[in-house]
Amino acid sequence: MPDFSELDLNFMKRALCLAMQGEYTARPNPLVGAVLVRNNQIIGEGAHLKAGLAHAEINALKDAKQRGEDPKGSTCYVTLEPCAHWGKTGPCVDELINAGVARVVFAMQDPNPKVCGQSELKLKQARICVEKGLCEAESRSLNLGFLAHMESQKCYVRAKIAASLDGKIALSNGQSQWITGEKAREDVHKLRAKSSVIITGIGTVLADNPKLNVRLESLLNTEKFNHFTQPHKIICDSQARLINEIKNIKNIFNIFNIFNTDLNSQVFIAHANSAFKDQKFVYSDFNSPIELLYFPSETSPNKSDYPNVDLKKLLSFCYSQNWNDVLVEAGSTLTSSFFNLNLIDELWLYLAPCFLGAQSQPMLKNFELENLMQAHGRWKFSESFQYANACFLGKDLRIVLSHL
Amino acid sequence: MPDFSELDLNFMKRALCLAMQGEYTARPNPLVGAVLVRNNQIIGEGAHLKAGLAHAEINALKDAKQRGEDPKGSTCYVTLEPCAHWGKTGPCVDELINAGVARVVFAMQDPNPKVCGQSELKLKQARICVEKGLCEAESRSLNLGFLAHMESQKCYVRAKIAASLDGKIALSNGQSQWITGEKAREDVHKLRAKSSVIITGIGTVLADNPKLNVRLESLLNTEKFNHFTQPHKIICDSQARLINEIKNIKNIFNIFNIFNTDLNSQVFIAHANSAFKDQKFVYSDFNSPIELLYFPSETSPNKSDYPNVDLKKLLSFCYSQNWNDVLVEAGSTLTSSFFNLNLIDELWLYLAPCFLGAQSQPMLKNFELENLMQAHGRWKFSESFQYANACFLGKDLRIVLSHL
Repeated sequence: MPDFSELDLNFMKRALCLAMQGEYTARPNPLVGAVLVRNNQIIGEGAHLKAGLAHAEINALKDAKQRGEDPKGSTCYVTLEPCAHWGKTGPCVDELINAGVARVVFAMQDPNPKVCGQSELKLKQARICVEKGLCEAESRSLNLGFLAHMESQKCYVRAKIAASLDGKIALSNGQSQWITGEKAREDVHKLRAKSSVIITGIGTVLADNPKLNVRLESLLNTEKFNHFTQPHKIICDSQARLINEIKNIKNIFNIFNIFNTDLNSQVFIAHANSAFKDQKFVYSDFNSPIELLYFPSETSPNKSDYPNVDLKKLLSFCYSQNWNDVLVEAGSTLTSSFFNLNLIDELWLYLAPCFLGAQSQPMLKNFELENLMQAHGRWKFSESFQYANACFLGKDLRIVLSHL
Repeated sequence: MPDFSELDLNFMKRALCLAMQGEYTARPNPLVGAVLVRNNQIIGEGAHLKAGLAHAEINALKDAKQRGEDPKGSTCYVTLEPCAHWGKTGPCVDELINAGVARVVFAMQDPNPKVCGQSELKLKQARICVEKGLCEAESRSLNLGFLAHMESQKCYVRAKIAASLDGKIALSNGQSQWITGEKAREDVHKLRAKSSVIITGIGTVLADNPKLNVRLESLLNTEKFNHFTQPHKIICDSQARLINEIKNIKNIFNIFNIFNTDLNSQVFIAHANSAFKDQKFVYSDFNSPIELLYFPSETSPNKSDYPNVDLKKLLSFCYSQNWNDVLVEAGSTLTSSFFNLNLIDELWLYLAPCFLGAQSQPMLKNFELENLMQAHGRWKFSESFQYANACFLGKDLRIVLSHL
């Protein structure tokens, strides 16, 4: 890695902050920020806000122009290798060359192996100095969903659990509203807003009747939400109980909050009930028809006549839709199924300073260890450019875990 | 409260830091630090290190003398109201007057109502300016055991729990070594070192054979431990099983690590077995005889023929011994008993980034809530001058809870 200066570091950090402008809107594209610097002065800044809109470098060049600054001879700090291909927009690398930029410093190479390094070559051929690797980890931490898609052909799965300090998510009588306080619940809306799709279980839908959308006015009214679309929603309902529940109801939107979807956001029911094997939709005459996903698992559980939903197939479907950031927000049954199949990449725990007792409902179930060694080596408290590794939200504590 | 300057604040913070020098040794006395300042320069510093040794103000005056400084006209910042009475040492207030100190700023009044305000009066009579209340909360947070003793005629009870994030302290097969890592376990030695006495249960003694002393060399070799004595130990053993176990063993010290006590530290067995009602000691011919405490509770539990140890009586005994800082370091049975009687003032949770599953042993048991409202309003994540409210220790997280 080249020997970067303190100034280089500061400008790249600024570019990372700019990248965060697209936090809730850029998906499935990566978060990217760019800064143009001449004589140690920022002359232009930009971020990528939405697929189809301009890339960060282009926005930075536009910004410089608006300020009456000439980017000729400047350094461009950008958090991702500039693109060299025609997608929904033209190749940024050509624009940088045409603008006369003298040096390009980027944090992270393009994770697409077909593209990676192409613009580096192109820039060097144009006699532009190229340096890379500054704040690479930080830039990667902003784009875990995008990177999982590109590098591992999978989604990045987050799970949210709100629990007491003795690891309980509800009383034995089922009461779970509310363990955590308002600030923690507000924070969950931000987590939802970062997600392409939210997966929940039929138990949660029937017990809590959640909306599972982003409806924090203080958030939605900010500039960062200008291009926001609500995440999609998937209900895991192995027996397709919900289809029977709703088929005779005229206005399900008044009964089940989860079906109150916003424009461009869709609700899916993932099931394993062969009776509905060939049915594609329920309420197909509505603006937002409810789509059925038949993903029966091959191994049938002992207790039930119905197979479970095959969660791996479900995640493959999400991947095929370019839903890179999946949030599991469910009760302990479904969350435990994801957990026990090792499908969760990141766990967001909201811990309230209270204790619910051994009889209350556990956050995770259906697994037992024979040896403590089996417990270790899988999770760590996560650190990120994007969030504090331990953070108090009102009376509660938020911690994030990721794989070791 | 007077209008204190930024400089006042800084000097008082220095006095608080000095007070911490007695963190492991001053008990049952309070932690106190003092700073003498003239022309905004520190000319003397001192702390109270051990009962019987000089108070912080006297040490600060001595320090000034050694530096060749005259305290005449100086300001004394001290974290506790100077004493006005003859105890093991002479009254500090007289020494301050004799030294010609012009102004005294103290953080916290003497909690003893008989003494409180006396030295303030005496100083004012000597025409010394007295101001109080600067960093009062910080000074109080250093002296929770001392204050509980003085203000509430009780001990301050801390409990330590090492658990997984799903609130489990051992596997269903009993394995608990180790859930947390080395750094967390090292930190527990500091917690022990701050304690007058450690209470554990017979179950832990038989299962884990712990030493329950402070044996971290890197800690013991520091200056702060010059005057250190190991905490006492109490084993809660309702049925007095241990007395029967050990009565025919010649050298119990080779069998049970907990009896390997250091000089000035004693082991007690608290029991409720009337067969040993009148027996005062076992191993009474040893240097450190094991003392028996017969504290049967009046309400006998259903399951057992023996009553339990009355934990309130046990804590009253600790109070009578001036053991202001009690640490409960036990399994879930005894810890839950303290918890359910609302006898725990502060909970130190060491949380490992792992999950042990619903079948594993819970951190707290024997209570059930009917309503989530009952869970709230009792605990909060604690903030203190003495420790961070959330702190990573190696791979683990430490959080401290105190009463709301």
